[in-house]
Amino acid sequence: MNKKVYIVGAGPGDPDFLTIRALNLIKSADVVLADDLIGDKIKALIPKEKFVNVGKKSSNLSQEEINRLIVKMARDGRVVVRLKGGDPFIFGRGSEEALYLKKSGIDFEVIPGITSAIAVPESVGIPITDRRITSTFTIITGHEKTEDSRINWKALVELGGTIVILMGVERLERNMNKLLEHGLDPTTPVSIIEKGLTDDERVVFGNVANISKIAKDENITAPAVIVVGRVVNLLR
Amino acid sequence: MNKKVYIVGAGPGDPDFLTIRALNLIKSADVVLADDLIGDKIKALIPKEKFVNVGKKSSNLSQEEINRLIVKMARDGRVVVRLKGGDPFIFGRGSEEALYLKKSGIDFEVIPGITSAIAVPESVGIPITDRRITSTFTIITGHEKTEDSRINWKALVELGGTIVILMGVERLERNMNKLLEHGLDPTTPVSIIEKGLTDDERVVFGNVANISKIAKDENITAPAVIVVGRVVNLLR
Repeated sequence: MNKKVYIVGAGPGDPDFLTIRALNLIKSADVVLADDLIGDKIKALIPKEKFVNVGKKSSNLSQEEINRLIVKMARDGRVVVRLKGGDPFIFGRGSEEALYLKKSGIDFEVIPGITSAIAVPESVGIPITDRRITSTFTIITGHEKTEDSRINWKALVELGGTIVILMGVERLERNMNKLLEHGLDPTTPVSIIEKGLTDDERVVFGNVANISKIAKDENITAPAVIVVGRVVNLLR
Repeated sequence: MNKKVYIVGAGPGDPDFLTIRALNLIKSADVVLADDLIGDKIKALIPKEKFVNVGKKSSNLSQEEINRLIVKMARDGRVVVRLKGGDPFIFGRGSEEALYLKKSGIDFEVIPGITSAIAVPESVGIPITDRRITSTFTIITGHEKTEDSRINWKALVELGGTIVILMGVERLERNMNKLLEHGLDPTTPVSIIEKGLTDDERVVFGNVANISKIAKDENITAPAVIVVGRVVNLLR
């Protein structure tokens, strides 16, 4: 009989930020298929006999192969936890896995996780929203590979809210230039939090005009969360 | 001696979606100051002798009075948990409380919570992001009271990403009209999830042009999360 698949968010990496439900599911599942990004301390919580690493770097499995493996395990009658870093539906491929399960007729449930887009800035005292400053915030992916950007940078600037950029270190200079080209005030505060919520966390501050140089001087590397907006300096 | 204040997100209401850290802090704190919005099942976890209800509806305390109470308790040498619905820095007044603590010289830490803006849609199978559809999503407050909106609706429409509206039931028709006036395709899918992640959850589907009538016919009331965008129908 097909068993259920739980697509579970593991949060930003520290077991303290797992939800109660995620922890219970990890304990009770027959098998846990885990990403590279979930963090060593969370990996350590998974019983060895249940643990299957399907991270794209370490396992070399393609998304299609991961999809098929999840379905096969469910059809074999195993309760599957598919454990993903952060929240399953924020810029991972959670929706693709969910769609594949649906098309395969496998029952599934999605368990939200703490997303680093919000948690990492707030852990260093940056509130993503503040009613005196902004009524909106937008989360974008910063790692688009082509110059043919799918992001409407002009609209993003005109929206005027907080901007959080995930996966944005590699293309930092290009993305800051896009914001400047479309009229964002060069003095708008920016913070980059490298390896947020880990022991190796580093935080740098600057503005849209100078943050690329600061990041280069400090040798900031991925993973990092980038926050653009006046909220950056609110509690400093 | 001043003790530390923990500004803690309680998530969308079900104790299953508390983080491990939030639960541990609730148990170990000397006092827990809780909002109306945190949910009865979470309130039931707080030992009675620690529990102080500072919800604006039930306690009649102003934000200023809440701020002062938190500081007084910390100065009295108590470890304070300030427990807020959802995530502390998403459209609550978490940042105002944090700023007050900072100005008062009280040490504080912010503990992220699962935000209903993401968790409620995903619990009904709506992925906020999908790389084939959008590279951005924006979360806005829908309860602005004046016609003098601080939201740049034109930019929001042109951005073209998923839009999540919190506190948007009362002003639903006005907000959908704002989107239509600024050029959003009337057939853009919309879902409203009323009382998400509770036993009383209801979900309705429609589009930007007809969702106001559907919500009225179904007598949808707050609290609800509204999702606008093609992701709404992705897994249906």
